[in-house]
Amino acid sequence: MTNPTAAMLVIGDEILSGRTREANAHHLAGRLGRAGIDLREIRVVPDDHAVIVDALNALRARHTHVFTSGGIGPTHDDITADAVAAAFGVDIDVRDDARADLQAAVGAGRTLTAEHLRMARIPHGAELIANRISGAPGFSVENVHVMAGVPSIFVAMLDALLPSLEAGLPVLSGELRFEVGEGRIAAPLRELAEAMPELSIGSYPFSDGSGYGTNIVVRGTDQAAIDRAIERLTAIRRSVG
Amino acid sequence: MTNPTAAMLVIGDEILSGRTREANAHHLAGRLGRAGIDLREIRVVPDDHAVIVDALNALRARHTHVFTSGGIGPTHDDITADAVAAAFGVDIDVRDDARADLQAAVGAGRTLTAEHLRMARIPHGAELIANRISGAPGFSVENVHVMAGVPSIFVAMLDALLPSLEAGLPVLSGELRFEVGEGRIAAPLRELAEAMPELSIGSYPFSDGSGYGTNIVVRGTDQAAIDRAIERLTAIRRSVG
Repeated sequence: MTNPTAAMLVIGDEILSGRTREANAHHLAGRLGRAGIDLREIRVVPDDHAVIVDALNALRARHTHVFTSGGIGPTHDDITADAVAAAFGVDIDVRDDARADLQAAVGAGRTLTAEHLRMARIPHGAELIANRISGAPGFSVENVHVMAGVPSIFVAMLDALLPSLEAGLPVLSGELRFEVGEGRIAAPLRELAEAMPELSIGSYPFSDGSGYGTNIVVRGTDQAAIDRAIERLTAIRRSVG
Repeated sequence: MTNPTAAMLVIGDEILSGRTREANAHHLAGRLGRAGIDLREIRVVPDDHAVIVDALNALRARHTHVFTSGGIGPTHDDITADAVAAAFGVDIDVRDDARADLQAAVGAGRTLTAEHLRMARIPHGAELIANRISGAPGFSVENVHVMAGVPSIFVAMLDALLPSLEAGLPVLSGELRFEVGEGRIAAPLRELAEAMPELSIGSYPFSDGSGYGTNIVVRGTDQAAIDRAIERLTAIRRSVG
């Protein structure tokens, strides 16, 4: 596949401490798959300046896009914008258009506080990402796209951002359920995977109230190839059924 | 804090493609916090030998412990055990005690298949991690602990493993809910964080049916310090209420 690749960087002590269940990666993964952008890594790091800078620099060198979530609010533990500026070696300051977004969100009559202005600090050279929920914008510096951790705002920012990114071929998939454990179908599955290297074939065991079984998922960018694989899987299912 | 540190490595295309929601990190994070092991990073990587080996080598050099999930079943996409052997530069082969675990799970009368034996392949020098659910064991090589991705089995393996690891001071926490946005309390919060650097103080905005607000979470290993911080936060809440 020659689709663009991506990494996600989740920033926040609350995920690593077990307080909060991470809630944006699954949404991002699904959206990127449909956009033909190949999500290759997710990394969760704490609110630690040096660790964030290192992760940003490692991931942005390796992937077409890096999507971050978390750490762009007004409090002392929101340090993502400064880390992005440091990773790119650029200055960061309050920017007029970001301030205007915040002013529009709080209402023209109210004075912006120091905390509002903290959320209008944007690294030099960035493009803003609109936030239709609460005003405070995200931003992109080159291939790094910085978004909020609050799920409703993350979704809104991704809505605003994704249409501007170059898409690849959407990743399509087919799935077939087997009422046997994966050990029973491992051999023919391996043959199929070797015969169709253009597809990714995953085997996912499950157990539910009625017993255990295996879901086989076929992924790729060619619908006809996926259809052929599902046909062969259906034949395998008949032979073990 | 001088607690041991840890990273988690989640292995599996299904998380990155958006098919499956990652389900073990939150559980691991909570268990490690209570055991006084400081989870510093979570990384999700695809079923790609070279990528897994690189991640294992980066993380095991940096942390006291690395916990992996996924990729130890019987099918062609289960490549974790081979990647761990490659990362440590050791051989891997079917091992008698692992084979005995599988034989016990399938019943003494049944012959083990090639797929069962694939799950008994263990890197040389590893210690097994018991699997009370389905028999096929996990294993530890030095500081890398290899467990299944199926959540019930991951939990069972962690139950078996954790008591054998050296624990640190349990991380304790206190939490206080504010019925105001985090901008309203950012300044006194920053002062508190600076006055009590031994604590980690996190600010987490929320919105629900009744409006929006902020949860403040205080974490550390000293209960008396946490109590003092909660007292000061209670005074801050009165002043903005």
